[in-house]
Amino acid sequence: MDKVLAMPTYGGIDLGGTKIQTIVTHGDDRSVLGQARRLTPHEGGPPAVIDAMVACMSEAAASAGTDVAHLDGIGVGVPGEVDVASGSLERAPNLPEWEHPVPLASILGERLGPGVKLGNDVSVAAQAELVLGAGRGVHSLLAVFWGTGVGGGVAFEGKLWHGRGDAGEIGHMVVKQGGARCGCGRRGCMEAYAGRRSMEGKAKRLMEEGHHTDLFEIMRERGRNTLSSGVWEHALHHKDKLAERLIERAVQALGSGVASAVNLLDVELVLVGGGLGSRFGEPMLERILAAMRPHLLKDDHPPVLRMAALGDLGGAIGAALLCE
Amino acid sequence: MDKVLAMPTYGGIDLGGTKIQTIVTHGDDRSVLGQARRLTPHEGGPPAVIDAMVACMSEAAASAGTDVAHLDGIGVGVPGEVDVASGSLERAPNLPEWEHPVPLASILGERLGPGVKLGNDVSVAAQAELVLGAGRGVHSLLAVFWGTGVGGGVAFEGKLWHGRGDAGEIGHMVVKQGGARCGCGRRGCMEAYAGRRSMEGKAKRLMEEGHHTDLFEIMRERGRNTLSSGVWEHALHHKDKLAERLIERAVQALGSGVASAVNLLDVELVLVGGGLGSRFGEPMLERILAAMRPHLLKDDHPPVLRMAALGDLGGAIGAALLCE
Repeated sequence: MDKVLAMPTYGGIDLGGTKIQTIVTHGDDRSVLGQARRLTPHEGGPPAVIDAMVACMSEAAASAGTDVAHLDGIGVGVPGEVDVASGSLERAPNLPEWEHPVPLASILGERLGPGVKLGNDVSVAAQAELVLGAGRGVHSLLAVFWGTGVGGGVAFEGKLWHGRGDAGEIGHMVVKQGGARCGCGRRGCMEAYAGRRSMEGKAKRLMEEGHHTDLFEIMRERGRNTLSSGVWEHALHHKDKLAERLIERAVQALGSGVASAVNLLDVELVLVGGGLGSRFGEPMLERILAAMRPHLLKDDHPPVLRMAALGDLGGAIGAALLCE
Repeated sequence: MDKVLAMPTYGGIDLGGTKIQTIVTHGDDRSVLGQARRLTPHEGGPPAVIDAMVACMSEAAASAGTDVAHLDGIGVGVPGEVDVASGSLERAPNLPEWEHPVPLASILGERLGPGVKLGNDVSVAAQAELVLGAGRGVHSLLAVFWGTGVGGGVAFEGKLWHGRGDAGEIGHMVVKQGGARCGCGRRGCMEAYAGRRSMEGKAKRLMEEGHHTDLFEIMRERGRNTLSSGVWEHALHHKDKLAERLIERAVQALGSGVASAVNLLDVELVLVGGGLGSRFGEPMLERILAAMRPHLLKDDHPPVLRMAALGDLGGAIGAALLCE
């Protein structure tokens, strides 16, 4: 694989709090030539994370039969606040010891070659769904990534809307004034009910108060140290009452928040992705729509609900889309 | 005033549940040449309302020194669901006895001349603010019309966003799951706390439960039969405790709902208008921003809040803007 090919070859890095996913894509449709995945180092701070990104990107290039030096550009989706102009990751609460702004684009540029671009991880995943995934050809959409947190994206006239740079924070729409405390410190956010991290905290507190649940037992059996999407799915499958209750609470919050956004924006499509969203799949779409309906002003004319199409690779593909 | 003028002359009709406001505008900046106002007839159903609209439009034309037959077009903003293609007002819960769709554009066209266009009253008012009012030159905005109900509009890239035809319903964003019953029948909508009609209902119930308030006394003294914006203002001025409490409750709901919309859309400007909004003016903007802050994800970077600029005539000017 070499630059002699007419279509450009781009790298994509999806930097998450848990894992780093890299890919090498080819052509306008970003077909995937190679990929690699690593755990995000939880010790060593930004230098260790950067080393892992470099190694993981090189590994994906090798699996595509090329070298990072031959890529026409590398896009990076990062879990935090990006200064696009300076290519700096300003804040990243979900990355270990990421306490100060880091000029990630220039550091990675020195080690991987020029043309490194940063973007917000959720934004790039939404862009990937819009351009190459379940939102292709759609005029307006709302993307909801339901996972550890709840992220989102909105698109109008076929283009992702960034606002002043920070649009899409659907997880922090207020669904209950004075309600549950969110990981962001605020009260009543949708994510305080539907984010997997919040749900785990609530499950722990309820268990400590004497409610029965097998959630943490299942977690240990599966060798996990958090309640992953798979753990929740397993618990539901075994009719764990507390898990069912917390999922229903999450679905109600998603329903209220998404319906609020639809009342305001009247989009034609709502895309659902993220770890929990992808795990539960199609049947969950009906539950979310049922939870939206009591709040939809035009309940006889709801938007279409559809699963995100790019799954786990969406973030890395969207990162590669930053290069054009 | 005649068609020999190079710039076109348009009529605008703002049909409300309480009053009908008409204007005649001239030129691209829609400068107002004449205007008239009537109460919306509460008996006689659509025929009586249509008669009043025709008479009021003719009166505005006369006051502009012209005749309706000489207008280059007439736009009508209506309080309900519009089928733009057929020019029909489908549903209008706030108009007396408007129980079936009425092909308003063609009926008015026969009586006032061709070129009658319908639009939603809140949308046209938002468009007027965007094009000629406080939103001029702004890239993105959220307009909040705080009155009997709470209506809104969103604009991106300098253009009002209509979605599939029904965007802008900010009053029906959910601010409290399972919360107060809204006039629309749903629970927890922003309007259930901040709409003047809901606030009046709540004030009545609290008074019946034994809480003291001078609100209804002030209403009678001023010869009104509802708690108008002026009544609320007067009660606040006299430190009526119950009025203060209900206004604070409304402001908290506005703060949560608007902050939710800002978290999702990251607009640069929030415009506040409507009967209550205009009445309370600038000092209220600070209270609304203070209520937004605890819910704003980027609380160090809030949007600008500004009063709507066109006041009572905004709806009629926006209606005239339908003709282009």
